[in-house]
Amino acid sequence: MSTLPTNPRSYRLAELASELGLSYRGDGQVRIDGVGTLSGAGPGEASFLANPAYRGELETTRAAAVVMTAAVADNYAGNALVSANPYVDWARLLGLLKPPPPIMPGVHASAVIAPDAHIAASASIGPGTCIGAGVRIGERVRVGPACVIDDGVEIGDDCRLVGRIYIGARARLGRRVIVHPGVVIGADGFGLAMDRGRWLKVPQVGSVRIGDDCEIGANTTIDRGAIDDTVLEEDVRIDNQVQVAHNVRIGAHSAIAGCVGIAGSTRIGRYCMIAGASGIGGHLKICDSVIITAMSTVLDDIDQPGEYGSGIPARPHARWKRLLVRLGQLEEWAKRLKRLEKPNKNHGPG
Amino acid sequence: MSTLPTNPRSYRLAELASELGLSYRGDGQVRIDGVGTLSGAGPGEASFLANPAYRGELETTRAAAVVMTAAVADNYAGNALVSANPYVDWARLLGLLKPPPPIMPGVHASAVIAPDAHIAASASIGPGTCIGAGVRIGERVRVGPACVIDDGVEIGDDCRLVGRIYIGARARLGRRVIVHPGVVIGADGFGLAMDRGRWLKVPQVGSVRIGDDCEIGANTTIDRGAIDDTVLEEDVRIDNQVQVAHNVRIGAHSAIAGCVGIAGSTRIGRYCMIAGASGIGGHLKICDSVIITAMSTVLDDIDQPGEYGSGIPARPHARWKRLLVRLGQLEEWAKRLKRLEKPNKNHGPG
Amino acid sequence: MSTLPTNPRSYRLAELASELGLSYRGDGQVRIDGVGTLSGAGPGEASFLANPAYRGELETTRAAAVVMTAAVADNYAGNALVSANPYVDWARLLGLLKPPPPIMPGVHASAVIAPDAHIAASASIGPGTCIGAGVRIGERVRVGPACVIDDGVEIGDDCRLVGRIYIGARARLGRRVIVHPGVVIGADGFGLAMDRGRWLKVPQVGSVRIGDDCEIGANTTIDRGAIDDTVLEEDVRIDNQVQVAHNVRIGAHSAIAGCVGIAGSTRIGRYCMIAGASGIGGHLKICDSVIITAMSTVLDDIDQPGEYGSGIPARPHARWKRLLVRLGQLEEWAKRLKRLEKPNKNHGPG
Repeated sequence: MSTLPTNPRSYRLAELASELGLSYRGDGQVRIDGVGTLSGAGPGEASFLANPAYRGELETTRAAAVVMTAAVADNYAGNALVSANPYVDWARLLGLLKPPPPIMPGVHASAVIAPDAHIAASASIGPGTCIGAGVRIGERVRVGPACVIDDGVEIGDDCRLVGRIYIGARARLGRRVIVHPGVVIGADGFGLAMDRGRWLKVPQVGSVRIGDDCEIGANTTIDRGAIDDTVLEEDVRIDNQVQVAHNVRIGAHSAIAGCVGIAGSTRIGRYCMIAGASGIGGHLKICDSVIITAMSTVLDDIDQPGEYGSGIPARPHARWKRLLVRLGQLEEWAKRLKRLEKPNKNHGPG
Repeated sequence: MSTLPTNPRSYRLAELASELGLSYRGDGQVRIDGVGTLSGAGPGEASFLANPAYRGELETTRAAAVVMTAAVADNYAGNALVSANPYVDWARLLGLLKPPPPIMPGVHASAVIAPDAHIAASASIGPGTCIGAGVRIGERVRVGPACVIDDGVEIGDDCRLVGRIYIGARARLGRRVIVHPGVVIGADGFGLAMDRGRWLKVPQVGSVRIGDDCEIGANTTIDRGAIDDTVLEEDVRIDNQVQVAHNVRIGAHSAIAGCVGIAGSTRIGRYCMIAGASGIGGHLKICDSVIITAMSTVLDDIDQPGEYGSGIPARPHARWKRLLVRLGQLEEWAKRLKRLEKPNKNHGPG
Repeated sequence: MSTLPTNPRSYRLAELASELGLSYRGDGQVRIDGVGTLSGAGPGEASFLANPAYRGELETTRAAAVVMTAAVADNYAGNALVSANPYVDWARLLGLLKPPPPIMPGVHASAVIAPDAHIAASASIGPGTCIGAGVRIGERVRVGPACVIDDGVEIGDDCRLVGRIYIGARARLGRRVIVHPGVVIGADGFGLAMDRGRWLKVPQVGSVRIGDDCEIGANTTIDRGAIDDTVLEEDVRIDNQVQVAHNVRIGAHSAIAGCVGIAGSTRIGRYCMIAGASGIGGHLKICDSVIITAMSTVLDDIDQPGEYGSGIPARPHARWKRLLVRLGQLEEWAKRLKRLEKPNKNHGPG
């Protein structure tokens, strides 16, 4: 419940460069205590240029200093922090200027903690949070308000569970995992058997394992495994409203954008990137370093790295409706083409 | 925790017409104390006809009175409330007959309120709700149970947060905003920089601004901005399970149906309507008065008002599979067409 | 808060067969106290073979016994439980070996219960849960932590609400309904009327009725009806992150996979199956026994049982982009085809 830094920090440009291990150009004495976009930053605020599309904004920015590449800095008269990777160094600069608030260790009086739960003394447990039997919570973990952590869960050091999160029985989170509000980890997967005209629920008895340095976006769901566990390897980054079904395995360093659905037992490789609102079918194998473009449907294994997709960009609706009519005619067209190609072809459709 | 009106109201038709500023036809003394659909309404219940498709149901309805246009009323023998816009006047009639329950001002004993939060005396705070440092809650605001409102949030007069809602640090809601359960406003956006083979989180330091009269549907997520704020202008209406990424801006009076995803930094104009399950790419500009049809993918700027789409209506699966085969042949067909068009064309495929 | 069985049970194979009403082959004295996949099971663990694709794993499995058909058992040298429907009997076996934990009847001290709510003495209400006026909770119901159950809700015998669930006013759940975390039942539907340039909210006054034996997956939303109720008939099974809009009716025994959206007033028949991430338009009628394949868009009534779809499988992106170009040319191609088919045709495009 305290996300605001109590003491925003202030640096001179030369100090900031030194802290970040970067060189700077211009006035090393200028004071920096905030951040802004190139167009929005005012005096005392740092900014950055990573996307060349915004380069024109350098001419009018009022930022006190701008993180940029050496090549850009060579033609810039203002104050610069020179970086080989401006977006990475911008993230590091934000970590200095906008540090997360300090942890206030302790368990809120309104939290409900099972007697045999083990909570590190350096951890913080927010109001109204319920922690079940045998749970282990590591050093410096922050569990925000209104979380439900079921029996036997293990949460590694330095995790942050922002608030209003559910974690099901026996799930294990590695270290430095960040979980955003509304996330449900370890609910039952969708296991059903049809038994004489009625569905029979197949009990789901696996759990969820999440590696170090993963991040799970708001309202994302990750189901427990049917028998074995659902697994996220280390450094997997998942955006909001993603659905990860039972027994999915996502390889290290993969990133999944918002609204993606991944059906049961699919394995996604390492360093994959899945763009927004795509759907990945069940029981598939996607190899390492695959990129799926937005709103695509993956229904087959992919065994070669590269970019795949099936999203269709929107057009004016009247034109799209005419194209849909033509699409529906393709079977007939196949016959017409074939007929036209016959040496003694019979002209005319039908 | 009290959504049921304690005293359902009762009106005579003539009184109802007078309250709504409408004329009526038929028996002004008939008593009305409930509502129903044309086919479901019984005695004492009002109904409405806005969609001409349901006009046939007028012949058999048992409704005590029906809101309808004058043109329809001219041929209707029953009791009518005559309206230039029956759906609008139906909404107003519901406001009279089914008013929201009165606010019970006060803070529930189990709520956890930071000492320096400012909560108007006329506001109501439900059980288990946590309110952080420096939060400001306006007059007649209802915050239901189990909400988490982080530090520095401002909530304008007459807002209604139904329950089980998370609002992140420093978000600002205007007046009369309605937020449904499961909503997450102000979680971190999906900001990542690749740093020597590992993702580095880019701290998200902006917040969310929501204008007057917005409504946010259940389990929708609206991320905080990366640097500047994510913004909903006034009277934006968002359905359930919509994802609004960091730094999106949605213009006044736009409506977004369920399951839509809007990627980062996209600007949507005023009076736009986006139908269900569509995906809007990042960094786009959509002008005013654009309609996107269901399950479309928008990947380009739109600078002309009008209707756009790319959804494909389902067909019998066997036929769809054959069309997919043809779709996959289009590149080859292009060559065949070209060959056929050559004056001395070479007959036959390949 | 106690999902872990305290005393995992142990059976001899002959006992297990007897309990399940199955015959067995092999060593009836072998002890079984756990479960595993064919490849993962160790000594003391049962497994199953339902999908022929995994038959090869029988050769190397270390499982103590495997549920399988008689035909497979005829060629299997290990211990077998012989079943006409191995997946169904596997579900039943899991019910024996991994029974849900016993209910601990009673209301947690931190729950907030309206004075006139009626809660069966055999029910269990978890910490922090809020129960409104006039709510009725049946025998052996488990309501987990941090749930919000609004006024007038009725919950039938043997339901299980796992935790962090919202149920809106007057919703009625039948018997044995399972609701997973993050679910929102009975939030307002998306009812809006445009009134002189501004949206007017149409009050939503219906509720939700859910039949016996339904299951609702994590973070799914089911809106209350506008006037009449939204209805799930008995034995409807819904996966995670599904959106069911106001006044939808879903027929008995239908199953809806993850991330599906169903727009308002649509009626889905009995024994339908809707695969992941599909979108179903509003005001449609889908008859019984319809299967919708993954990521399809249904925009028309369906009055014949069978399989329908419009999802497009992803391809390598470069190839997909070329196909999109061809798709955009289909209108022009229609003219070219017609021209080629004319007896005195004019060769060449344009």
